[in-house]
Amino acid sequence: MKFFVLVFSFFICVKPSFAENGLAQGVQCEQQIISLIDQAKRQIDIAVFSFNRQSIIKALIKARQRGVEIRLMTDRSQLAASKSMEDVSRLLNSGVDVRVSTHKKGLMHTKMAIFDGKHAVSGSFNWTNAAVENNYEVCNIFKNDESYAGLHLKMFNRIWEENSKSKSDGWLRMKGYCGNFLLLRT
Amino acid sequence: MKFFVLVFSFFICVKPSFAENGLAQGVQCEQQIISLIDQAKRQIDIAVFSFNRQSIIKALIKARQRGVEIRLMTDRSQLAASKSMEDVSRLLNSGVDVRVSTHKKGLMHTKMAIFDGKHAVSGSFNWTNAAVENNYEVCNIFKNDESYAGLHLKMFNRIWEENSKSKSDGWLRMKGYCGNFLLLRT
Repeated sequence: MKFFVLVFSFFICVKPSFAENGLAQGVQCEQQIISLIDQAKRQIDIAVFSFNRQSIIKALIKARQRGVEIRLMTDRSQLAASKSMEDVSRLLNSGVDVRVSTHKKGLMHTKMAIFDGKHAVSGSFNWTNAAVENNYEVCNIFKNDESYAGLHLKMFNRIWEENSKSKSDGWLRMKGYCGNFLLLRT
Repeated sequence: MKFFVLVFSFFICVKPSFAENGLAQGVQCEQQIISLIDQAKRQIDIAVFSFNRQSIIKALIKARQRGVEIRLMTDRSQLAASKSMEDVSRLLNSGVDVRVSTHKKGLMHTKMAIFDGKHAVSGSFNWTNAAVENNYEVCNIFKNDESYAGLHLKMFNRIWEENSKSKSDGWLRMKGYCGNFLLLRT
């Protein structure tokens, strides 16, 4: 009986400790994101307001090349105002499923990503040079935390559904983008 | 011995389950923040890039009136560009210890708060009308989670130390603010 209680308490107690959660800063946050992208086996889901960090974009393209499915949601206002369009084109041409937020009001202001449904990054940290090099940011890392990753994935799926592929493609065409990915889609 | 093992495993196992963590949206996030402010007994520490939500500002002033110590860190660029100066004045005059970020480069872009050192809110959610009413945002809530709240508090303290009261007051004076709080401070 004593043995049973010990084994039982071991499984109950030890399981939660697998989750490694933390709060990263600047380059640390960038490294954690790249490491999670590099380790992803199946699926990466990203909803980030703004991005221009080349190291992260390169890691995403590399992940895509080894067959990881990637959905990336970003904001139209930010995209229109920045030079991210070039980055978006590269991601689209590498097979990343990009959608631009087209909901009527407000911003797609989240900065979150979910990796294989079990790790998540969530906070104020856009995937930009400014966030890595200059700003104070919060970058929450949830590793092996399917509960928290699940909450983020549920939210991601809602945003994804509310912003259809056809509307997103329409917006990109209106902005003058007519690369391969749109030809393939139409 | 069996009893000891059982009691030991109860304390080890049950303690972490007190933490109630979640991901809130829009009005839910606003309500959670107000509820945490209303329940605070001792100390609230806030580092939020931008704020104009009157319900939250009112709750902070009410907390101050019942003796809760409040430190609020915000960003100079956001403050200069918005009408938040009026809100800052009200908070300062109610006894909230406000500092404006004066670090040389980058933004104080965090959106986080710690309540009595044991609860935290952290994400992309500025304390603004747009965040509550229009945007997609992530609003991570960590309740009774001293470990996670501790990580945020450590980061808050670092930002607070790196942005001195004298520099912050100097910036506010330069911007033409000369209310009671500055007379009292000098």
